[in-house]
Amino acid sequence: MSITDTCMPPWRDGPAYRRAPGMVLPQGVSPNLALDQHLSHRIAAGERVVHLGLGESRLPVHPALIERLADAAPAHSYGPVAGGETVLRAAAGYFTRRRLPTAPDQIALAPGSKAALFALIAALPGDVVLPRPCWVSYAAQTLLAGRRVTRVPVPAECGGVPDPLVLRENILEARRRGHDPRIVILTVPDNPTGTMAAPETVRRVCQVAEAEGLVVLSDEIYRDIRHDPALPYLSAAEVLPDRTIVVTGLSKNLALGGWRIGLARFPAGEWGHRLRAKVLAIGSEVWSTVAAPMQEVAAYALDEPPEIVDHLESSARLHGAVAVAVHRVVIAAGARCNPPQGGFYVYPDLEPARAILAAKGIVNASSLQSCLLDRWGIAVLGGHHFGDEPGSLRFRAATSQLYGRTADEQWDSLRAADPTRLPHVAGQLALLRDALAALTDEAG
Amino acid sequence: MSITDTCMPPWRDGPAYRRAPGMVLPQGVSPNLALDQHLSHRIAAGERVVHLGLGESRLPVHPALIERLADAAPAHSYGPVAGGETVLRAAAGYFTRRRLPTAPDQIALAPGSKAALFALIAALPGDVVLPRPCWVSYAAQTLLAGRRVTRVPVPAECGGVPDPLVLRENILEARRRGHDPRIVILTVPDNPTGTMAAPETVRRVCQVAEAEGLVVLSDEIYRDIRHDPALPYLSAAEVLPDRTIVVTGLSKNLALGGWRIGLARFPAGEWGHRLRAKVLAIGSEVWSTVAAPMQEVAAYALDEPPEIVDHLESSARLHGAVAVAVHRVVIAAGARCNPPQGGFYVYPDLEPARAILAAKGIVNASSLQSCLLDRWGIAVLGGHHFGDEPGSLRFRAATSQLYGRTADEQWDSLRAADPTRLPHVAGQLALLRDALAALTDEAG
Repeated sequence: MSITDTCMPPWRDGPAYRRAPGMVLPQGVSPNLALDQHLSHRIAAGERVVHLGLGESRLPVHPALIERLADAAPAHSYGPVAGGETVLRAAAGYFTRRRLPTAPDQIALAPGSKAALFALIAALPGDVVLPRPCWVSYAAQTLLAGRRVTRVPVPAECGGVPDPLVLRENILEARRRGHDPRIVILTVPDNPTGTMAAPETVRRVCQVAEAEGLVVLSDEIYRDIRHDPALPYLSAAEVLPDRTIVVTGLSKNLALGGWRIGLARFPAGEWGHRLRAKVLAIGSEVWSTVAAPMQEVAAYALDEPPEIVDHLESSARLHGAVAVAVHRVVIAAGARCNPPQGGFYVYPDLEPARAILAAKGIVNASSLQSCLLDRWGIAVLGGHHFGDEPGSLRFRAATSQLYGRTADEQWDSLRAADPTRLPHVAGQLALLRDALAALTDEAG
Repeated sequence: MSITDTCMPPWRDGPAYRRAPGMVLPQGVSPNLALDQHLSHRIAAGERVVHLGLGESRLPVHPALIERLADAAPAHSYGPVAGGETVLRAAAGYFTRRRLPTAPDQIALAPGSKAALFALIAALPGDVVLPRPCWVSYAAQTLLAGRRVTRVPVPAECGGVPDPLVLRENILEARRRGHDPRIVILTVPDNPTGTMAAPETVRRVCQVAEAEGLVVLSDEIYRDIRHDPALPYLSAAEVLPDRTIVVTGLSKNLALGGWRIGLARFPAGEWGHRLRAKVLAIGSEVWSTVAAPMQEVAAYALDEPPEIVDHLESSARLHGAVAVAVHRVVIAAGARCNPPQGGFYVYPDLEPARAILAAKGIVNASSLQSCLLDRWGIAVLGGHHFGDEPGSLRFRAATSQLYGRTADEQWDSLRAADPTRLPHVAGQLALLRDALAALTDEAG
């Protein structure tokens, strides 16, 4: 893993190439995006696929956002790397309303939270501790930044955070191996598990991070998609304000993945200020700025006018209703699965059906993913893509793909008292139920 | 330069930090963007500044592009990392019409050509050879990717390419120093010099690149801004089709810097295909995709309908007319300066006035930049930012800043038979003339 994987040209007319240390290139396109590209061809060719592979909210853009983008079209200057003053102020307000008092100069925009995360890992010192399982890109970004990954199992009851009981021990073990863990990434609510770490868990993870001198990157991109708004939320930035950087964006809560709007919130004070300057320096050499019209959209959305608040709430309700329905289906099929609490994922474990699956040649997450797609038309990502044990029978289903193919169907889903009874949702759920039943049936 | 400059946290409760090899972070925000941010505050505070600091085309967005963006606002899916099929086809057509036959699968979009360049340097093996002077970001990106820079002087008659007479010798010398030069970047037409390498020069540089086993990154972002369309243009990709990657974008030709649309064209065949896959893998972990609505704009623009062709032509005429007028002003002030041929820059050398400037405390490019701004209100970037000799008295003036502050003034500039006679252009030119006259006058 310590050798840069670069693209050697076929000619060898110079001296032998000396491999550079540092960056380790990803082996291919990020697996969720790769699967989506693959499926779009199969679906376009008429194949019937229940696409649960991509973590994209299949909801239409709110009309007010479309209007803002159209109005902002004449904006075409580069502007400041961090984003213009209006959007920085709006972002500061967004966090301040979430118990994180924030000044505009603590904010930096990026073309997606992904870009912000990459720049943060590159700007911070040391290696990275990840929960296992976790989002597909953290590890790839860490290697790309020339750092090493330590994976720490999540607690039994939720994902998104390392189990606080074993975190310290894993950090010490990593140091014995010569690693230098300095960063821990938390995802609350979590992708892939769809669960949400309880405040007490976040607090205990933060205590270990502090004791061991780690910086916390708190990925809160699903924060606005809590299925039960009454469930208490604690950001690591409330526990460790001086050493937590929060990243978020509008891709998930407002279904704007294709608009590329992300942001980071840095600690107040000298260190946070210097870290932000480093991130902006990297941004200035890689992406320059977030597209100017998108910044105007972001300023509007982050101000959270009533129509956006309503939209966020009804979106979270829909995400919850469908995730719960899918959870019911996977449980009925005999899987173990924590109940979903946020985002739009479930992460079932078919371990109880291992013997039956083995008889069908399904012996690990990879063969589970392949067979589900090829034999039953169900597209999911195997747990191995999230750094989970390859031999496990776990997979992630992105339930947000079930709201309908057309904007009309999606609006209907959003407005329905019980979206799971709409024909276009119920039909997909039934296909999933039948496929999982066949999968886990000895004769299936 | 071999030590990663990361942001150490103030607490030291863990063991001592071991510095990682590889990436070298930029020291700050890219100087052109930094200067622009700095100036926007001073100008907003009422200061009179002739802003020639930022390489941004101060022309309004063509209305057809605004209309396309507004129409495309509902597009909000992630889509393929490289870009959707429509825009890939349009980009292939764009290059094919420029004597570079191209299939859609040779194209990858990126949020700016800057992002494409970074990913290319990271994906290719080896160190990087740059012309001296060259665009501010190539060197920063090279260091960020953990590689080393060799700077080779440009020929006397143009910038943007290493002098072919000394290129090989410089490569061999770099190898003796332990470097591993494998990439050479060409900029035709050039930023900062505003000149354009002749076909024969491009050909000779390519011959050396081939003999020495180097890959060519051909930055053609100013290709559509040739002041005299009759001047012959040769792309390195015509000379070395198997080992040249072309990067370009819509920031300069269509004044869309703030829309973040860039693209790369890879060689046909197996190696180009694998390199593109690497670049897409990096892109998938850093920026995901170009914003979906921007892709629709790009597809329209790269198809080059007649109204866009007209707009490109009249923009190039305006850029040429004003660059020539600024060239006249700097020559009159006693500077040496190659006549501008493309883009919107001049790169004067005040060496002939060294004695006079020294008496005013101006002894190098840095003090020249500072004094021009602080004493005469002329904002430029000193040659040192482009890797040029710090002791030189050279600077870059971005002449595209002179077209007016309002869209109305800018449209007038675009439509005028002689834009340099418009009061808002002539007034700025007069300020520049007076400032340079005072600068180079013994009593000034």
